Amino acid sequence: MGLINVEDTEGIRILTLAHEKPTNPFGKEMAEAFMTALRAADADDTVGAIVVNGGRDRSFSAGGDFNEVMLLATDESVDELIDWITDLYVSVLDTGKPTIAAIDRHAIGLGFQLAMMFDWKIVSTRANLVMPELEHGIGASMGAAILSTIGSYDVARHIIMGCRPIGADTAIRLGMADESCEPEFLLDRAVQRARRMARYPHIAFSATKHVLTDRLRTTLEQTREDSKAVHRKTFAAKAMHTHFNNILGKNREKAVSAAS
Amino acid sequence: MGLINVEDTEGIRILTLAHEKPTNPFGKEMAEAFMTALRAADADDTVGAIVVNGGRDRSFSAGGDFNEVMLLATDESVDELIDWITDLYVSVLDTGKPTIAAIDRHAIGLGFQLAMMFDWKIVSTRANLVMPELEHGIGASMGAAILSTIGSYDVARHIIMGCRPIGADTAIRLGMADESCEPEFLLDRAVQRARRMARYPHIAFSATKHVLTDRLRTTLEQTREDSKAVHRKTFAAKAMHTHFNNILGKNREKAVSAAS
Amino acid sequence: MGLINVEDTEGIRILTLAHEKPTNPFGKEMAEAFMTALRAADADDTVGAIVVNGGRDRSFSAGGDFNEVMLLATDESVDELIDWITDLYVSVLDTGKPTIAAIDRHAIGLGFQLAMMFDWKIVSTRANLVMPELEHGIGASMGAAILSTIGSYDVARHIIMGCRPIGADTAIRLGMADESCEPEFLLDRAVQRARRMARYPHIAFSATKHVLTDRLRTTLEQTREDSKAVHRKTFAAKAMHTHFNNILGKNREKAVSAAS
Repeated sequence: MGLINVEDTEGIRILTLAHEKPTNPFGKEMAEAFMTALRAADADDTVGAIVVNGGRDRSFSAGGDFNEVMLLATDESVDELIDWITDLYVSVLDTGKPTIAAIDRHAIGLGFQLAMMFDWKIVSTRANLVMPELEHGIGASMGAAILSTIGSYDVARHIIMGCRPIGADTAIRLGMADESCEPEFLLDRAVQRARRMARYPHIAFSATKHVLTDRLRTTLEQTREDSKAVHRKTFAAKAMHTHFNNILGKNREKAVSAAS
Repeated sequence: MGLINVEDTEGIRILTLAHEKPTNPFGKEMAEAFMTALRAADADDTVGAIVVNGGRDRSFSAGGDFNEVMLLATDESVDELIDWITDLYVSVLDTGKPTIAAIDRHAIGLGFQLAMMFDWKIVSTRANLVMPELEHGIGASMGAAILSTIGSYDVARHIIMGCRPIGADTAIRLGMADESCEPEFLLDRAVQRARRMARYPHIAFSATKHVLTDRLRTTLEQTREDSKAVHRKTFAAKAMHTHFNNILGKNREKAVSAAS
Repeated sequence: MGLINVEDTEGIRILTLAHEKPTNPFGKEMAEAFMTALRAADADDTVGAIVVNGGRDRSFSAGGDFNEVMLLATDESVDELIDWITDLYVSVLDTGKPTIAAIDRHAIGLGFQLAMMFDWKIVSTRANLVMPELEHGIGASMGAAILSTIGSYDVARHIIMGCRPIGADTAIRLGMADESCEPEFLLDRAVQRARRMARYPHIAFSATKHVLTDRLRTTLEQTREDSKAVHRKTFAAKAMHTHFNNILGKNREKAVSAAS
């Protein structure tokens, strides 16, 4: 069984993130599997719209795979990290068909940002969205650029400076989520919405989406270099050590020994 | 009786859209009558502020006149359509005096977008604002540009991807409306607000409005070409046929025969 | 006793605006005292974060010092005014450490805009934020630029065209405030928040803040010239006389005689 489960239901492609951990951490391998699955869905004439979820009672994605982040020893590896993350986000914007995110439990950092790329965002009532980077000494320049562009400076500031979970109601108030429902109905709701959006005539949809997402796509490209600079600086400052101690806890030793 | 009724009350010019249909569809002739009336009000020294409404118990405007849209056979006619619509929107921004929209019942597509150009927007409790374009196979590139600029990417995405009516409370939450009231009080409220805004010293008002609306005016000019490209593509795809069947219903035959 | 009171509590620098008037009007002298105190706090290694407030039961700041504004006789003096106000705002964005605004009672015009520059904004339940410029015949081009950038065109339009106080709940809805509390808890809450933000590793915080605030900083620089043009025009129109009559009331004569 791969990192992504693929299922079709009456013209809707359901992609389920299936990392062995229920938090669905994203490393480079997961990102590549995701992009491959997304492009296949976009190219498949039997598919009208695409739903992405984290699996029943699992997190959409609790963020970057910190066992990988920890190994970032050089500027080149920081650059490579920023590049695949940016490519991952852009791949959702570049999908010509409607994309729907069904977000349960945690959407953190990269997982939060990835969710923001979808055409429609449904959060479960227990979902929380967090940008905890600053608290852990990690730069949040990419989050700042994304949240400023999809919402506003004040939305970005509030979330990034706060480092606190945003619940379903607040996510809707801030415009970041479109609807919410109890966790047990989440996937069905996403499929219903996908069916509706799949009925929109394709050319009008994709041409409009291209125009609508243009500024966000431009922002992502512009922030590549900014983000590389910020992350080089923060990683060089060893702020990540604090981060590892806080986040990985006892998993840290395992990761360190694996890296050595 | 013309397409626009003009009435003055103690220094406030009330323009009432008076199309024979209670939905106030906008064609080129209506747009020209509107712009003429607006410019006359702006140039009239006895007028302090301008209220626009759709008439008692009538829609502000349910959008473009689809009997006209249906006749768009050539790229040139698409271009002409986009041009007069853009000119229509810009004419409201270019008005030096305060403009107040009183929005009852439907504000759809062009009608929605036109309403967004006003300095103050009052919606009745039964009003609904919709961008139904994608559902009908019509590009919404101009809507995407306008809503992204007045609100945010997420506001534009939610409204355009959703194709669902936005009610008064949601319009206020999204920042698109400033106040709401029961339909029977709508015009009086708009006139009250106009009186208040007419008291603002004119030079400070118009100079500030010019700066405030600058980015929106720039967006409208930039989106002319984008919108022409998107609409040429979608009209060429015959997606409008679906649109006509859905929207015009049996009026369609009449329009088709008139065109032939 | 100076214009700014300075106090430290466990690594948090508390700056209290201490103008003799409880409304804390900002003139050039106050602005210079504020910038000096802010830079000293940013340079002091014992300080982790900075709280700014208007003093117990006093206003954050009711705006520009109109006794000074009244004396603006020449274009050069208008330019000088815009320059120090812009420098004042930029000084908060340029602070590398977390800045928290504790906003009680009035935050008007310049006071409102200054508050918007902080990394975290706490309003008391009796606070009100107002941009009354248009009502008094003063251009609000700088407010238009700031509110459009931190929120949206619709947020800026609503506040500037409305000229009405925004209360705590609305400020939170519009994204302009992050939390609210009863006045008696305001300063403690701000210090708690400052302690939390002071724990964020510094390099990640300051690098992220620099990227996040970049567009706002650019907006402020670009609006310098726009604002000078608008204010020259409105002051030349003698609209300020109306303003003085409305705002200063009987203080006007005193100010006029002081100026002659």
